Amino acid sequence: MSLLADLLSSVFDRSTRTASDTQWDNRPINELVADLTGNHGEVRGMTLARQILDRYAAMDAEEKRAFFLHLASGLDIAPETVRAALADYEASPSKATYRSFMAAAEPPRQELIRRLNQVPGATERLVRMRHDLLAMAKDDASLAALDLDFRHLFLSWFNRGFLVLRPINWSSPAQILEKIIAYEAVHAIDSWGDLRGRMQPTDRRCFAFFHPAMPDEPLIFVEVALTQGIPGSIQAVLADERDPLSADRADTAVFYSISNCQAGLAGISFGNSLIKQVVDDLSRELPGLKTFVTLSPIPGLSKWLTAEGLSETATDDKIASLAARYLLNAKRPNGAPLDPVARFHLGNGAKVHAVHANADTSPNGLTQSHGAMVNYLYDLAAIAQNHERFAASNAIAASSDVKALARAAEKPDT
Amino acid sequence: MSLLADLLSSVFDRSTRTASDTQWDNRPINELVADLTGNHGEVRGMTLARQILDRYAAMDAEEKRAFFLHLASGLDIAPETVRAALADYEASPSKATYRSFMAAAEPPRQELIRRLNQVPGATERLVRMRHDLLAMAKDDASLAALDLDFRHLFLSWFNRGFLVLRPINWSSPAQILEKIIAYEAVHAIDSWGDLRGRMQPTDRRCFAFFHPAMPDEPLIFVEVALTQGIPGSIQAVLADERDPLSADRADTAVFYSISNCQAGLAGISFGNSLIKQVVDDLSRELPGLKTFVTLSPIPGLSKWLTAEGLSETATDDKIASLAARYLLNAKRPNGAPLDPVARFHLGNGAKVHAVHANADTSPNGLTQSHGAMVNYLYDLAAIAQNHERFAASNAIAASSDVKALARAAEKPDT
Amino acid sequence: MSLLADLLSSVFDRSTRTASDTQWDNRPINELVADLTGNHGEVRGMTLARQILDRYAAMDAEEKRAFFLHLASGLDIAPETVRAALADYEASPSKATYRSFMAAAEPPRQELIRRLNQVPGATERLVRMRHDLLAMAKDDASLAALDLDFRHLFLSWFNRGFLVLRPINWSSPAQILEKIIAYEAVHAIDSWGDLRGRMQPTDRRCFAFFHPAMPDEPLIFVEVALTQGIPGSIQAVLADERDPLSADRADTAVFYSISNCQAGLAGISFGNSLIKQVVDDLSRELPGLKTFVTLSPIPGLSKWLTAEGLSETATDDKIASLAARYLLNAKRPNGAPLDPVARFHLGNGAKVHAVHANADTSPNGLTQSHGAMVNYLYDLAAIAQNHERFAASNAIAASSDVKALARAAEKPDT
Amino acid sequence: MSLLADLLSSVFDRSTRTASDTQWDNRPINELVADLTGNHGEVRGMTLARQILDRYAAMDAEEKRAFFLHLASGLDIAPETVRAALADYEASPSKATYRSFMAAAEPPRQELIRRLNQVPGATERLVRMRHDLLAMAKDDASLAALDLDFRHLFLSWFNRGFLVLRPINWSSPAQILEKIIAYEAVHAIDSWGDLRGRMQPTDRRCFAFFHPAMPDEPLIFVEVALTQGIPGSIQAVLADERDPLSADRADTAVFYSISNCQAGLAGISFGNSLIKQVVDDLSRELPGLKTFVTLSPIPGLSKWLTAEGLSETATDDKIASLAARYLLNAKRPNGAPLDPVARFHLGNGAKVHAVHANADTSPNGLTQSHGAMVNYLYDLAAIAQNHERFAASNAIAASSDVKALARAAEKPDT
Repeated sequence: MSLLADLLSSVFDRSTRTASDTQWDNRPINELVADLTGNHGEVRGMTLARQILDRYAAMDAEEKRAFFLHLASGLDIAPETVRAALADYEASPSKATYRSFMAAAEPPRQELIRRLNQVPGATERLVRMRHDLLAMAKDDASLAALDLDFRHLFLSWFNRGFLVLRPINWSSPAQILEKIIAYEAVHAIDSWGDLRGRMQPTDRRCFAFFHPAMPDEPLIFVEVALTQGIPGSIQAVLADERDPLSADRADTAVFYSISNCQAGLAGISFGNSLIKQVVDDLSRELPGLKTFVTLSPIPGLSKWLTAEGLSETATDDKIASLAARYLLNAKRPNGAPLDPVARFHLGNGAKVHAVHANADTSPNGLTQSHGAMVNYLYDLAAIAQNHERFAASNAIAASSDVKALARAAEKPDT
Repeated sequence: MSLLADLLSSVFDRSTRTASDTQWDNRPINELVADLTGNHGEVRGMTLARQILDRYAAMDAEEKRAFFLHLASGLDIAPETVRAALADYEASPSKATYRSFMAAAEPPRQELIRRLNQVPGATERLVRMRHDLLAMAKDDASLAALDLDFRHLFLSWFNRGFLVLRPINWSSPAQILEKIIAYEAVHAIDSWGDLRGRMQPTDRRCFAFFHPAMPDEPLIFVEVALTQGIPGSIQAVLADERDPLSADRADTAVFYSISNCQAGLAGISFGNSLIKQVVDDLSRELPGLKTFVTLSPIPGLSKWLTAEGLSETATDDKIASLAARYLLNAKRPNGAPLDPVARFHLGNGAKVHAVHANADTSPNGLTQSHGAMVNYLYDLAAIAQNHERFAASNAIAASSDVKALARAAEKPDT
Repeated sequence: MSLLADLLSSVFDRSTRTASDTQWDNRPINELVADLTGNHGEVRGMTLARQILDRYAAMDAEEKRAFFLHLASGLDIAPETVRAALADYEASPSKATYRSFMAAAEPPRQELIRRLNQVPGATERLVRMRHDLLAMAKDDASLAALDLDFRHLFLSWFNRGFLVLRPINWSSPAQILEKIIAYEAVHAIDSWGDLRGRMQPTDRRCFAFFHPAMPDEPLIFVEVALTQGIPGSIQAVLADERDPLSADRADTAVFYSISNCQAGLAGISFGNSLIKQVVDDLSRELPGLKTFVTLSPIPGLSKWLTAEGLSETATDDKIASLAARYLLNAKRPNGAPLDPVARFHLGNGAKVHAVHANADTSPNGLTQSHGAMVNYLYDLAAIAQNHERFAASNAIAASSDVKALARAAEKPDT
Repeated sequence: MSLLADLLSSVFDRSTRTASDTQWDNRPINELVADLTGNHGEVRGMTLARQILDRYAAMDAEEKRAFFLHLASGLDIAPETVRAALADYEASPSKATYRSFMAAAEPPRQELIRRLNQVPGATERLVRMRHDLLAMAKDDASLAALDLDFRHLFLSWFNRGFLVLRPINWSSPAQILEKIIAYEAVHAIDSWGDLRGRMQPTDRRCFAFFHPAMPDEPLIFVEVALTQGIPGSIQAVLADERDPLSADRADTAVFYSISNCQAGLAGISFGNSLIKQVVDDLSRELPGLKTFVTLSPIPGLSKWLTAEGLSETATDDKIASLAARYLLNAKRPNGAPLDPVARFHLGNGAKVHAVHANADTSPNGLTQSHGAMVNYLYDLAAIAQNHERFAASNAIAASSDVKALARAAEKPDT
């Protein structure tokens, strides 16, 4: 729809254009907040909202903390009012009593955040605001509660139905690509040349989710290698000197890096939707693809080996077995896998398919997992069942090879 | 941002493409609803949500009512739980107790609606669902309460910050233009030729708000005539035979028709934002524009004249005075103006600028207002103050001419 | 490439924007022409070219004729100069002598046309200029020669490599769609409702060639019906009440109307390229399509029947045989088929596949061919060979059924 | 026009997509050429043309030379035929005789090039072909003549009316931006960081011409700095640490680098059109801009100083005077300025506005001009007259300051 193209470009143009139009309002910020949440008409809302956002942007850390504390205490629910409205609704359920209950049960700071969001470009600024808040909320319970209000609204705004999947490649705008460099969290991108090597070849793909109100900011992205067969070494996948494969000759899509981009969207999960959508889109584009698999780090392995006193044993010929054992058997107190990446992919319905030694020989790979990596397999036919079993009982789907490896690691070395 | 263009086109393509992929699930709809709201992972959510939407689309009116009643009663808040959570939070405010309170105070049907919305194209379907609901809620209090949940979510989703203003013209897609024909609510568009006459000439403009998740559906639109001077007759404005004015020679922009498009978004107001944005955009594009004014109907005039026993007096030379008197003095019990169009524009900060007899000689115009119309003036320098006074005390801004006219109508006819 | 999108939009915007900037230059047009062709720098070229185009646009028919006659005689080649340059080149071939020959052998009016074309929007104006010229050239040999210069340049400018194929559908701009209505030359489109019936249903497609310098003007378009099996009636294909077929269930694409749009591009053939490109694109989009076929008029049939004294015999049960005989055996003096539509499709490498009585029962269909129509089959595997044979010896590819029908028509009615 | 966007994207997609579809045809290339030029239908043209282009792409230098020599000699005009056709036309001017003359006077290789161009993506390949040819034509007169045919067609294809001006900035596709790095010919861009410094700040602009058939290849681009006042040092303009100026506060646009991108388009001039269009566009966007000026190198200065025996005198306090003298007085035999950059800007109607010492202190700047640079002023009111005088008599427009400086340099140093 070209229609949308134009619209959205106009959104963006407008936001940058009008950013500097605001007249400064010298009243205390809390007064502006009161004015914005209390203002019944819409007429001055835009001006007030922009004012507050601009004022916030100019605050130092202590001023921000004071601003947040005001929202947390001054714009909280009033328990007496909630209780009274609830009693009314219970006694006499009606539109009017329900409306009163809804109004009472939602703290006014939620309405504040919604009204701030009417300013063009505000969504991105509110995401950054929550980023600030999260840092402060670690050691302040009232701010932690305030964060729940941001999170509640963001869950609604960043609903899957509003996100847009977008291929990222060497034709993408430089300003998007430099964010891919900045946000890559798994295998660092060193330079624009390195980036080109992941974006331009025929056997590479990258996809990101975007939100229409933040068109310049990817939310999450995944990098994909198209291969023949399942690879067991990230250095081999990323090797500069390899001959790129023609995409229609590939049988396997390897998700070798998934990075969240927005710290201010912590706790709002996009990864599962992203992987499914990419599997879906790649399947349509390249019918030759039969296998969808990750090549994933095992970030908790070394730590666990140390804790178990197994570090000494982790030689090249043993590390795969130990990794398999770790992935299948090491658990958190609640029964979930100890490894965070494992929790993510198994929770999505994937299966532990294969474990490889010497798979990530970078300093980071050697440190965190003695160089071991793992393939999680996304088998569309099995995902729902794998997920159900994992959700119900933490049951881990694994190939017989991996199971055998894990058992081997448990056997005493006689 | 061309980036967005592509994304959004892909959203749309995907929604139409996958619409038919769903496998039918024969379980009772309430079971599917329970499954979707209870499903803790995201894995099966998309499938369930699509299923429920498809099932809903195939329901007859009675099945829809039963579905809504289930949401209203089965997915309501549980007062005891709310009360307990509130007491906990009050006794010991913390992230955990606040989270419990939030969860208890929001009825599960809100989460259901959010989860339904993850399906591509779902937003539009949920807006239509609320349209159905509104019809049934008129005579069912529990459904009226349920509607508040839809409205609450829609207020968040259709936040001004997510809307996109878009010019509509003769280069717009036919599928959008045919919706302009369908939704025009003030001065009906009879044919594509009539439409072209409002979209193509150099002295005509049309703007609409869109939401990125509903790219084919305008939410509200305004039709604008560029003129020299302020017109006093809608027939003159719409005359086919007039010579179109070159846009850069116009000094006045006349908003002669504003139409809401989505019955399912009733109660979510876009008009004030739309007018302001259009004033802003037109000012930038055409610096010669000095006056922004409406040419508006007075829908309640004839009815009021009858009620007041003044119908007989409403001759051509008296009707303007009577209309002025009606606009300035006829009030609802709460002190607001009786005329709904007046309430809208005055609430936006506009001023009653001029009243015209013989201004709408269509059958509808003669019936509703004896042919009288009114210009509301949007004077950027005065909007905020006008609005404040109107909001505070229902004070109506009016030109001295209109005030004099109104006074004339009050004088006894001696 | 979104890049291009923007560019081209800017081309178009600019052309409309600057159209009115030109200052009027009162010198005789021939002086302006001399100035433009003689002007060695580029500096004033744009201004002069716009001036000439604006002056031309304001001319009446006699002034236009005078303008053309000046180009024809005043800007013709100078035979002496050509002869001398040719002799030089022959005597001493070099870059310099070849350059002189090229300069002499090309009449200055070609350079004039090229320089006129530098004005934004000029290409379309030059196409319309040739349209005017063609009408006058019918009875004026010198203008007929001048037309060859226009045609020569247009062949270069409208090279297949510069054309862009574009689907036309209900999302296309209204200003493009109204041109489809205007240019449809085979089965008239009566109304926007009729148009929607050909553009919107899932089993309809339309494609047009555009030139980037004329983005609002289709050059040629084809309307396609997706069907199961090969249809034998245009009224059945166009029937309003039919249930649209889901596109992926179709096995046949029927080209039921091909229309050239630009009279000023007469003699520049786009049809063959268009059909091939559409076959190619549809094959990729809808792999279920196995048959590509036309449902074509037989415009010369009735006339031929009359000429042959066969009109009386042309009853419903005989007309198909007679049509087959006409298509296969009626020839022009040079051996090519008498029927112009047959010449076009057979020249493209198509095959006469089937002939139908009662296939076009419209007044026009009954008049021109007693209601008979024909399917030409585009079989990708046979096109090259069919074309070669036809080009070499006017050999007509036909199905055995059609051949049998044709033979039947030759048998004496005993 | 979003329409065009889509089309052009489809052009590009198609070209890459179908590149690999070609079946290899083993006949000698000259046979394929004969087939393509002789082929009267269009049916096999696309296949043959693609074949020839693919074969050419695989040739080594000697094969390419042989291919070109075949075009030069085997597809040249036939003088006897031209002579006879000319005589016929002279004797009896008619459409038929003119057509025969046109056919005879154009060598068949021009038609070959046009037919090659029908393949998607061919234009770019033909531009590269001419690049190869130009290298070989330096020492081969017959190839130099052949080059005139390419040039003749390219002048028609790359007509100003077909070009699209496009801003280049940090939102542009990386694949375009890396070409800006590669093609920058005046002040080298060292890295993506350096590029960002020229593309992203508010006081920088870049514009390029594109051709719709080569959407990924800029033809020429200009880099612009927005400043307050006219700068006299390129290092100051490019300084990293400067504070970017808000664009609406600038009064001067400085064209500090203009680079042609396509060696295969040598001799086809875009610079004058580019500068005028950019002046026009910037004036509209930023009404505060009053002065349009270059900051240009003086590439021939050092060489001239050496030739004149003035190198020794070229100290910092003398170099500006000497540069002024060089620019105003040093001439080629034909009376044109000796300096090529001066010829370009003066030919466009610019004026020598100011000369600066220590203006380019890079090694290259010191070597070619002892660090001196010059501002050429584009004064819209004076351009036409400046151009006319320069074109008529090589008269150089210069400020009185520069004239005085030049005179100073002529005075004997007593």
